[in-house]
Amino acid sequence: MSRNKYPEETVNLILDVAQKLMLEKGYDNTSIQDIINGLGGLSKGAVYHHFKSKEEIFYSVAERFNKQAVYEIKQVRDDTTLTGLEKLKKMFQISLAQSDGDIVYSTAPNMLDNPRLLSFQVQEIFSDVAPNYVRPVLEQAIKDGSIKTDYPKEMAEVIILLTNLWLNPLVIRTDADNMEKRVRFFNDLLKRYNIELLDEEMLNSYKRYCTLIK
Amino acid sequence: MSRNKYPEETVNLILDVAQKLMLEKGYDNTSIQDIINGLGGLSKGAVYHHFKSKEEIFYSVAERFNKQAVYEIKQVRDDTTLTGLEKLKKMFQISLAQSDGDIVYSTAPNMLDNPRLLSFQVQEIFSDVAPNYVRPVLEQAIKDGSIKTDYPKEMAEVIILLTNLWLNPLVIRTDADNMEKRVRFFNDLLKRYNIELLDEEMLNSYKRYCTLIK
Repeated sequence: MSRNKYPEETVNLILDVAQKLMLEKGYDNTSIQDIINGLGGLSKGAVYHHFKSKEEIFYSVAERFNKQAVYEIKQVRDDTTLTGLEKLKKMFQISLAQSDGDIVYSTAPNMLDNPRLLSFQVQEIFSDVAPNYVRPVLEQAIKDGSIKTDYPKEMAEVIILLTNLWLNPLVIRTDADNMEKRVRFFNDLLKRYNIELLDEEMLNSYKRYCTLIK
Repeated sequence: MSRNKYPEETVNLILDVAQKLMLEKGYDNTSIQDIINGLGGLSKGAVYHHFKSKEEIFYSVAERFNKQAVYEIKQVRDDTTLTGLEKLKKMFQISLAQSDGDIVYSTAPNMLDNPRLLSFQVQEIFSDVAPNYVRPVLEQAIKDGSIKTDYPKEMAEVIILLTNLWLNPLVIRTDADNMEKRVRFFNDLLKRYNIELLDEEMLNSYKRYCTLIK
């Protein structure tokens, strides 16, 4: 199989095999060699041509699943009919409602045991998620009066730091009961800014994620 | 030099040399081999007998500096004359006032470039700092009425997650102006629970740390 003729097909094939293996055996027990073995004839060089490391493969698997959600979240962000607060809530709704999230939580490793993934996750919070998604929505919310704060940048960072790390069972392992308490305290915190963010359905998504972790 | 006769002296010697090198060249540019070279005759085996890795050496350097502060913080925690809120404030005062903190910030690496240190730092938040220092003080504060919340465990975790990661210039590099905004938003957040935590002096410590990072 030529790696240059249909690069997208090659990439998708690698991701298919990696995803299947990670779902079956878990991230930690899946080696790059396992992925190569599962590719039937594709060389090690071809895999490394597209991906530098196993982490990169996992992130691409997750990204492929999140593609639709990211598309919808961008549409909400750029919608001109909603208030900032309505957008914020809708963005969380989308990111927590995707049933595909289950697959990400089932394949992913514990991040504290995989420090490079943790570091990547922390960097993404400050370089992408907070500045490109949450901050613009908070800035609109301040203008339209739906949220009051002098610190949109800082509030965006804290919201995403808490949801993506603290409320992320891949980072801090926790059971459903403790997750519920975290979600309720997070809501309590934001309610003091008159922001009602996570409803019972979203709470249930968080609790379900806890049960999926291997 | 025998490594078994005076193990504490050996450990201190290793830490002295490591600290000097890390201050001069920075963490990333100091290798274990550099440390061994600076020890004049102590073997690689002797160093690895006491420390598994460079990270472990750095943590021991930092720990040696923090020893006095940790001792004082424990005394505050176990004091029977202060309210929970007074204790919380005093504990932050101690940890931010130590001039030795400067040395830690000057020697330490950027944690995002050193994922294992980041992961260690995150684990410490949940396994040591929040449960052993902040949570008991918050539980006392709830009993004595100086703080009101139904979530002492969760509040302890959020306070330390924000101070040890977000307000830590070793994790998220930031300049003094942005640090000031973070500190002010953090105060704003806690003020909504009637907690006044970081005063102007502590703010200035945070700002100074930003200028020390290599």
